[in-house]
Amino acid sequence: MLDAADALAAFRDRFVFDDGDRIYVDGNSLGRLPGDTPARLAARVDEWGARLVTAWPDWIDLPIEVGDALAPLVGAGPGEVLVADSTTVNLYKLVHAALDVRAGAIVARADDFPTDRYVLQGIAAARGRELRLVGDVTAALEPPVALVCLSHVDYRTGRLEDLPAMTAAAHAAGALALWDLSHSAGTVPVELDAADADLAVGCTYKYLNAGPGAPAFLYVAAQLHARLRSPIWGWFGQRDQFAMERPYEPVDGVGRFLAGTPPVLDLAAVEEGVRLTAEAGVDRLRAKSVALCDLIVAAHDAWLAPLGFELGSPRDGERRGSHVSIRHPDAWPICRALIERAAVIPDFRAPDSIRLGVAPLYTSFSDVWRALDRLRRLVEAGEHRLVDAATARVT
Amino acid sequence: MLDAADALAAFRDRFVFDDGDRIYVDGNSLGRLPGDTPARLAARVDEWGARLVTAWPDWIDLPIEVGDALAPLVGAGPGEVLVADSTTVNLYKLVHAALDVRAGAIVARADDFPTDRYVLQGIAAARGRELRLVGDVTAALEPPVALVCLSHVDYRTGRLEDLPAMTAAAHAAGALALWDLSHSAGTVPVELDAADADLAVGCTYKYLNAGPGAPAFLYVAAQLHARLRSPIWGWFGQRDQFAMERPYEPVDGVGRFLAGTPPVLDLAAVEEGVRLTAEAGVDRLRAKSVALCDLIVAAHDAWLAPLGFELGSPRDGERRGSHVSIRHPDAWPICRALIERAAVIPDFRAPDSIRLGVAPLYTSFSDVWRALDRLRRLVEAGEHRLVDAATARVT
Repeated sequence: MLDAADALAAFRDRFVFDDGDRIYVDGNSLGRLPGDTPARLAARVDEWGARLVTAWPDWIDLPIEVGDALAPLVGAGPGEVLVADSTTVNLYKLVHAALDVRAGAIVARADDFPTDRYVLQGIAAARGRELRLVGDVTAALEPPVALVCLSHVDYRTGRLEDLPAMTAAAHAAGALALWDLSHSAGTVPVELDAADADLAVGCTYKYLNAGPGAPAFLYVAAQLHARLRSPIWGWFGQRDQFAMERPYEPVDGVGRFLAGTPPVLDLAAVEEGVRLTAEAGVDRLRAKSVALCDLIVAAHDAWLAPLGFELGSPRDGERRGSHVSIRHPDAWPICRALIERAAVIPDFRAPDSIRLGVAPLYTSFSDVWRALDRLRRLVEAGEHRLVDAATARVT
Repeated sequence: MLDAADALAAFRDRFVFDDGDRIYVDGNSLGRLPGDTPARLAARVDEWGARLVTAWPDWIDLPIEVGDALAPLVGAGPGEVLVADSTTVNLYKLVHAALDVRAGAIVARADDFPTDRYVLQGIAAARGRELRLVGDVTAALEPPVALVCLSHVDYRTGRLEDLPAMTAAAHAAGALALWDLSHSAGTVPVELDAADADLAVGCTYKYLNAGPGAPAFLYVAAQLHARLRSPIWGWFGQRDQFAMERPYEPVDGVGRFLAGTPPVLDLAAVEEGVRLTAEAGVDRLRAKSVALCDLIVAAHDAWLAPLGFELGSPRDGERRGSHVSIRHPDAWPICRALIERAAVIPDFRAPDSIRLGVAPLYTSFSDVWRALDRLRRLVEAGEHRLVDAATARVT
């Protein structure tokens, strides 16, 4: 039994399973609630109640402190990561900062995650830069290129980008490399410093299990701190913040990318999610994630392909993140039926993909096996033809 | 006894007072914890644990729903306010949006709150606009002026700006008017729609008691929605958000100013803070706030002026927000001594101001009387000469 041999099996007990018979294979969208998070959040709330502003000396460095805790998970050093704002806002800050110091176009994938494309489109329009949204990034690096912006793991297919190689290709074209780690942080080893990456952002509510809308992280390589600045000049990035008379002069270090008052309560949940991930270790998480996804691929081949499914993800685990997409012309009603009639929670990505995400901290081999078995039975019985496909979408 | 006649006295019991003998007169910096907030936050956390992504249909409109609940507190209508991001980020979005549709300079006060000035400086530099940071705004409205950006209540002096008059003056100069309501929302009646104001931002962690770093709000007058767009093109502002193939096209309405995934947990605390404020009613809160501040002024005149203090706020309650600044050459050590030796928590604003903030939802007349009495005794006894003035600042 694969679960019996799973060195990470005990971590499942560190999460809340209040959802009965449901099988959750959507940790790639929103991670589960860690068991210790409610108490940590409650303690932070109590601290607000009891200490009020006198607690600010303990809170004010939290974005950097939590960033330092997160940094080893993405191959960054101390003082290179901070946690605040959303992934979208952080991406916005770093793209502008990059364009300040590099002339030329922005290169990104035409099928990248929407908010990444939107941010790039908006900034390209505002700054009069060419935006090359392409299928083949390597072929689109004709200089001058200012910035190459890529997702480490593709949100739809799970395809894992070669971060060191693409970073080197960006540099060879004279560009900075900016990575969106939303779908890799916490399940795929990321070596930002070792790959000489310049910039990165990522969310904490997927595999880092920090809760819906939890603050995101950003990374700026140490050697770039002095040259880059945020387009959003805010008081939390200001040198000697409480000497309020002065003109804006950003602090040294990654803290210059802070803007407004950081979300103190939420940072407690990020701390707990990061702590659990670090305790398990990204290498062990990666090994289990690949094995879980391999099981999905095997089940697809044996059970689903005969039912009209196609694999929408790389077959090779080395080239895949922590979810597997399976494609079917009836993906949308199948997805609804899985949720409503089979108590399996995946997610749907238009036009025809069902994403099955595995979160190696808490997804078991039995979860995967049972989810795929329910899926097979459901489609064999034609139950997806019984749901109202017009019902609201799961996000 | 003033407290016995206070129609809002019962609201004090709706807040957590876990701080013993301490007297808190810094609700203008960080509001107290409402008694029901821990349970509301815990319920939201439980919802995450039990429902995971299936709760998103209930969460996705929270920034607008909580904005609609907040709207009456600032004289706005439904669909004009949203709650997300920080005050700094929201200000950044609205300033850019305003400059897209108006040519000319930005006018603001040279002594406005730092983050407001910093944001304006950054944007003016990026867009090549003149920034007029002045003492006399009315005299600085020589066209072309694109935007007048003002704090409704000055963070240091508590001076209350005439919002309708200055909005009209901005319009007469051809400019849009953007208001920072951080120090007025929840204690001072604000009539954004009636004054024909264009744009506003404000924080929820002061008089709205939503907790440290809680998400901020922004307001865009309905008639401007179709013409303005956020500089940060994010997926939560996108029409048909989950049809992911399309280019960016913002939704109708204020939702176009959303960027990334909103902070679902924190929004529960904003909801509770807004609910309490609405229940008390801004007009009653204003009346009590003026009376509490009048008591500070009276105590200043009788007890503190002879000790070398000067009033740093308008004497006339009609021209003042909900805090009173008192100035003294030794303000910094006095502030430290108050905290360390007298258990009174005010805050300090360089170079010489002690701010005494009253939060009419929970500050009593007895609080104010006792805080001023302790301050008088402390300075009379010279206790402020005994503190180490080099100790860390209270923010």
